[in-house]
Amino acid sequence: MPPVFPLECVPNVSEGRRPEVVARLAAAVSSPPGVRLLDVSSDPDHNRSVLTLAGDAEGLLQGLLALYEVALDEIDLTRHQGVHPRVGAVDVVPFVPLGDTPMAAAVAAAERLAAEVERRFALPVYLYERAARTPERAALAAIRRGQFEGLPARMADPLWAPDFGPARVHPTAGVTVIGARFFLIAFNAVLDTPDVAVARAVARKVRESGGGLPAVRAMGVYLASRGRAQVSMNLVDFRRTPLLRALERVRAEAAALGAQVVESELIGLMPEEAALGVARDALLLPSLPALIEERLEGSLGRRIP
Amino acid sequence: MPPVFPLECVPNVSEGRRPEVVARLAAAVSSPPGVRLLDVSSDPDHNRSVLTLAGDAEGLLQGLLALYEVALDEIDLTRHQGVHPRVGAVDVVPFVPLGDTPMAAAVAAAERLAAEVERRFALPVYLYERAARTPERAALAAIRRGQFEGLPARMADPLWAPDFGPARVHPTAGVTVIGARFFLIAFNAVLDTPDVAVARAVARKVRESGGGLPAVRAMGVYLASRGRAQVSMNLVDFRRTPLLRALERVRAEAAALGAQVVESELIGLMPEEAALGVARDALLLPSLPALIEERLEGSLGRRIP
Repeated sequence: MPPVFPLECVPNVSEGRRPEVVARLAAAVSSPPGVRLLDVSSDPDHNRSVLTLAGDAEGLLQGLLALYEVALDEIDLTRHQGVHPRVGAVDVVPFVPLGDTPMAAAVAAAERLAAEVERRFALPVYLYERAARTPERAALAAIRRGQFEGLPARMADPLWAPDFGPARVHPTAGVTVIGARFFLIAFNAVLDTPDVAVARAVARKVRESGGGLPAVRAMGVYLASRGRAQVSMNLVDFRRTPLLRALERVRAEAAALGAQVVESELIGLMPEEAALGVARDALLLPSLPALIEERLEGSLGRRIP
Repeated sequence: MPPVFPLECVPNVSEGRRPEVVARLAAAVSSPPGVRLLDVSSDPDHNRSVLTLAGDAEGLLQGLLALYEVALDEIDLTRHQGVHPRVGAVDVVPFVPLGDTPMAAAVAAAERLAAEVERRFALPVYLYERAARTPERAALAAIRRGQFEGLPARMADPLWAPDFGPARVHPTAGVTVIGARFFLIAFNAVLDTPDVAVARAVARKVRESGGGLPAVRAMGVYLASRGRAQVSMNLVDFRRTPLLRALERVRAEAAALGAQVVESELIGLMPEEAALGVARDALLLPSLPALIEERLEGSLGRRIP
């Protein structure tokens, strides 16, 4: 039997250009027993890395504290540039329940980490999504509005006092956003145009907040390293909007503006059910394809996280 | 550790309309230790069932002999109708090497089964594909030409003396074709037309023997139960022609004849790599998507059969 991990955790750090720093962050976060590092995805244009971890609450807590230590040492947001919005060196840390774990356990892990981050690093913490203490803080985009550069003005407003830590911006590490949520698929579509206005227009049409697809968040960014614009998406419920439907909508909206999707990318990992759903939809199958490996393993009952 | 099965075996039996008979066949074939029944796919129009098994050579031999016994008892080809070509009650029995198993082991399993079928049932046996003893018998389609009804004339020709068993057709069970081959994906596309001529024309364009896609076999059949024509395909190397490319070619050839693909179906199982390949191709990803379940299991090195 493989070990059972109750939680996934997906820290997003504001460093995607120095592989040696990403390696130190990855080594630190996965050093405790009870933590497994599943994936590291770095992007130089976003200047951001997404680490995917699985573990128990105690192991993840210790690993994440080690990650904060390295990040505070290495990352200086006053000199950080990247196309992805960010407010912190350790920008956002979501806990995700795996298997039978209740969401409350993910919320508890978020709160415990927030308290420790306050105690050890005197860093302001906002709790978001399922861990949010006020409705305005549920949406990550709302917390990140104005980014690192806008934090001093924002934190002068008592309404935006942090949930943990001091009400003053850390000079190089900003703030950090910690929370709990369900599984999410980060999926980006690269356009054949360098015009970021096209990507932004497509993103506005595709995302739920613009009246587009349910459970889809999207923004348009410019990738200098590739000279192309990108529609960067989060699919927060792939059963409501499957991946292929999201891509087809992006294609249609881009085509209406004279642009094409040339390639796409997955940031981090996706559940097998989501990948098999793409095969089902693309092949016009009536149900998810049956795999010989699953039958051989007798793991037919294997569930998505 | 799950048990390691050296061989897959995929008997195709000429019964797809009587579920109780299919159940007896499935129970018989999977009764010995060392055999696992992975899948049963029955089709009433084809009047055929495909059983997917994994096991060791001895277990499969015993299970298959039990299958022949039930099939000879239950299936009468003089009264069998179906759109899929067939020459036997147990029409074709391919052994497929799994994992590190050499093809020679699959050939040996085929030969041993052929000898036992001769001894116990006095049934004529042709060996095909990797187990074929003459080049003319490598292709299953060549052995099956003329079907059950054409067997008496064919077997009068000494060139078509069976490899095992008597040179006379079994009155109700015909002959049986046993062999060894690599993994194969059976994939059917259903058209929006009842015109089988369209499906046949599409099949001729798509299949390798007609100058179409490499490693693709195809035929057109009519599905009375659905009132639709179907392009029935075998993909014998999904790395050379991935599933999505085969479907897209069927769509294009059908569209040229004014028809559309309305749905598709997978008969039996596919390797995970083939399904993830569809996700990669449909989503325009640079590589197979990374799955959280695989990373959690530490089964990254898991290979296709």
